[in-house]
Amino acid sequence: MNFKAIIHVLGFVLLIEGAFMLFPFIVGLIYGEPGGISFLIMALITMATGGALILRRPKNMTFFAREGFTVTALSWIVMSLFGCVPFIMNGEIPAFTDALFETVSGFSTTGASILDDVEALSHASLFWRSFTHWIGGMGVLVFILALIPMTGGTHMNIMRAESPGPTVDKLLPKVRQTALALYSIYTALTVLEFIFLAVGGMPIFDAVTTAVGTAGTGGFGIKGDSMASYSPYIQWVVAVFMMLFGINFSCYFLLIMRRFSAAFRFEEVRHYFIIILSATALIMIAIIANNAMPDMSFGDKLRHVYFQVCSMITTTGFSTLDYEALWPPFTHVIIIMLMFCGACAGSTGGGIKVSRITTLLKTIKKQGAMFFHPNRVMLIKSEGKPVSHETIRSINVFFMSYMVILAVSVLIVSLNGFSFTTSFTAVLSGLSNIGPGLEAAGPTESFSAFSDLSKYVLIFDMIAGRLEIFPILIFFIPEFWKRAFSFKTHV
Amino acid sequence: MNFKAIIHVLGFVLLIEGAFMLFPFIVGLIYGEPGGISFLIMALITMATGGALILRRPKNMTFFAREGFTVTALSWIVMSLFGCVPFIMNGEIPAFTDALFETVSGFSTTGASILDDVEALSHASLFWRSFTHWIGGMGVLVFILALIPMTGGTHMNIMRAESPGPTVDKLLPKVRQTALALYSIYTALTVLEFIFLAVGGMPIFDAVTTAVGTAGTGGFGIKGDSMASYSPYIQWVVAVFMMLFGINFSCYFLLIMRRFSAAFRFEEVRHYFIIILSATALIMIAIIANNAMPDMSFGDKLRHVYFQVCSMITTTGFSTLDYEALWPPFTHVIIIMLMFCGACAGSTGGGIKVSRITTLLKTIKKQGAMFFHPNRVMLIKSEGKPVSHETIRSINVFFMSYMVILAVSVLIVSLNGFSFTTSFTAVLSGLSNIGPGLEAAGPTESFSAFSDLSKYVLIFDMIAGRLEIFPILIFFIPEFWKRAFSFKTHV
Repeated sequence: MNFKAIIHVLGFVLLIEGAFMLFPFIVGLIYGEPGGISFLIMALITMATGGALILRRPKNMTFFAREGFTVTALSWIVMSLFGCVPFIMNGEIPAFTDALFETVSGFSTTGASILDDVEALSHASLFWRSFTHWIGGMGVLVFILALIPMTGGTHMNIMRAESPGPTVDKLLPKVRQTALALYSIYTALTVLEFIFLAVGGMPIFDAVTTAVGTAGTGGFGIKGDSMASYSPYIQWVVAVFMMLFGINFSCYFLLIMRRFSAAFRFEEVRHYFIIILSATALIMIAIIANNAMPDMSFGDKLRHVYFQVCSMITTTGFSTLDYEALWPPFTHVIIIMLMFCGACAGSTGGGIKVSRITTLLKTIKKQGAMFFHPNRVMLIKSEGKPVSHETIRSINVFFMSYMVILAVSVLIVSLNGFSFTTSFTAVLSGLSNIGPGLEAAGPTESFSAFSDLSKYVLIFDMIAGRLEIFPILIFFIPEFWKRAFSFKTHV
Repeated sequence: MNFKAIIHVLGFVLLIEGAFMLFPFIVGLIYGEPGGISFLIMALITMATGGALILRRPKNMTFFAREGFTVTALSWIVMSLFGCVPFIMNGEIPAFTDALFETVSGFSTTGASILDDVEALSHASLFWRSFTHWIGGMGVLVFILALIPMTGGTHMNIMRAESPGPTVDKLLPKVRQTALALYSIYTALTVLEFIFLAVGGMPIFDAVTTAVGTAGTGGFGIKGDSMASYSPYIQWVVAVFMMLFGINFSCYFLLIMRRFSAAFRFEEVRHYFIIILSATALIMIAIIANNAMPDMSFGDKLRHVYFQVCSMITTTGFSTLDYEALWPPFTHVIIIMLMFCGACAGSTGGGIKVSRITTLLKTIKKQGAMFFHPNRVMLIKSEGKPVSHETIRSINVFFMSYMVILAVSVLIVSLNGFSFTTSFTAVLSGLSNIGPGLEAAGPTESFSAFSDLSKYVLIFDMIAGRLEIFPILIFFIPEFWKRAFSFKTHV
């Protein structure tokens, strides 16, 4: 295990995080908030630490898969530890556990909050909260790949560990070009959403935080009622952009390359739209059949339903109304299914991912076909290409790991004494990086009533979910600790 | 597809079911219940139908896997359709859907009931309800294999389809001998439990129905409060026998063969005991820490907890108290985890099965080890032997199918408007063949409030769960219907 190279990369991560912290400091200056100074102090400390770590460049910068996984997991942990300090320093989230929870929730693009009154925060803190979504959405390591030409070693191993989805397409021959292309698309879409929101009369500060929060499919709102108090136009814009950020970014790349037919044949994206359409239709039928929200026009109902479906499948977690209180239980089951499903691979969304789900469904179909053709070799195809045995195996392991983490976490969180639905949806919401769950973890509640133990479990779940489990899995392998220990004794 | 051979075997199934129906008729005679005559009438009709189907023996009795799956699925459906008629005829469960639900719940060893007052039933009906557990526990097709020397074709394909668990061990060189050995162990254990119960002063009728209900890990009680009103001694006996019927029967076979060291090395059985021990310990700690049931002695608490753990992991579903109301939410999560887990493969219990769970956990461990040894060939072992890729694939498909059926069923059942926990645990309880769930599907409730649509979904789930999904999967393959149709046009 090449720990020297790992620490070197962590230095770059801190350097960039420190630079990013200057933005909330500037926001604090603009609004004349004295607490904003905490972001400047912490920016300097973070950059200094990062700088110290990169002073000596290791000769060997080779990255195998295990180094890729380890640096990804560690960078998320280190970023959160540094990123939470300003909240403690300016006293807006005084408890360490709460500040860490809020920051991990930000970077992991979850959007679950321990704050009972979010509107009491300063602009600087509100901006940092939302901005962590944007940083975490695409991933800092991808950013590093885009900026720093690292020689030697396979960058692909970092990108593979950090990017959501079962496989990472190399869009361009070089990883660096791919990373730059991804960040360009990401930035362009964010700016586009900001423009649409600003044009609709949303205040500039609200538009910026909402745009970065949507881009990372995060879900931190700057209002206590999330998106409920904004105009229908703004709600439509946010809903559509949530949907757009849940699309596999390779699809955008194909569009830019003018390979339109390939873009429109994109199987995962087609399934993603089918799920959104079906879920919206089913919830609409259930609402109308149950005469829920009787005084609302069809168009208003459609807006709220479409918004909620997009918010859940993309694992953003914004809301426009208390769907739990207003909609029948049938719709809650659909919402829970969307929470499991998640968005496309290669998007900023969380969850299991559409392409994983469809591949798993195809394995069932194959089993059925084998009854009649036991000796025929049948390949499972995705995007028209056969899926390797290796990929299917790793999807199966992912699915099982997901369920195991879910089960164990629900068990621990249930120690709070909340209802099963509360514990179950709170954990699912953390693991799928959504934000709200149901009942005591519902869209109108916060996580402040949960114990510190539960918060740490959810912190683990949020990071595991964002990194798609495998990079976190490495810490559970005894061999990792053996090697880590022998490294320590050698230095 | 050899439909003629399938129909021939179905004839035998009906013949045996008809013979079994004479038992409740005799019970009716003993208690002088006029309604008992319905069992005689239906026994004759069932045997006549069965006899008509076996009149002409097809020349070709070859059974491939697909015929094995098809005959298994069909026999369960046909048995339930014939088996529910007496309830309708004697007017004790007048509605067809309810009678079918109760019968499927019996044969599938689920034990979920639509009856609000079970004590209002006649002895004949009560006996038939419990006896269906015994019939379904080991499976009628295994019984056929034991009795009828069918020449030609592979019996193994039937046994494989009907027996719970990922792999069927051939205990003896011939399938017929294996089936006979299984039924002998099954009968001996049932008689043993009956003796223990009768010695403890349980009325003979109660002891018989409780013994057959425990043997099949079914869970139909003959009292409204399940096992609550019986003595501590009887509750201990039932708890221990539930545990015994959840053990892989191959283990008993090894004991009989005096291969003690092999029996004690049995990995799945060891894991099964570890789970029972851990769950009991965790629930005990939670109850004591929460000061639940404060006036109860430690021994009484232990009895109730051990009883409930055995009842859930073996998917029997008996209960001695309202654990949902009395125990903290943490224990409910453990109960739900046990409902998923289920008993050993090769037992009469349902659920995913211990050996499947451990194999899936081993795939996660292997994934972790691969970070450090990407090129080493690592085999997953079970019972000391490498598990074939084919078995792992089919366990993965089973797990995914289980989750898909669970999700879709919960969605449909949620149309009732019950809480998420109710719909979720009701379906899980059906699919794992347990009986009670939580909240409105809880241990003190019945399924009478569920819609007919929900009942049919649960009927499907119970059969799918008992047959471990794959035999039912065949009906979802278009090719099955194509072949079934072409068969019809050829006859």
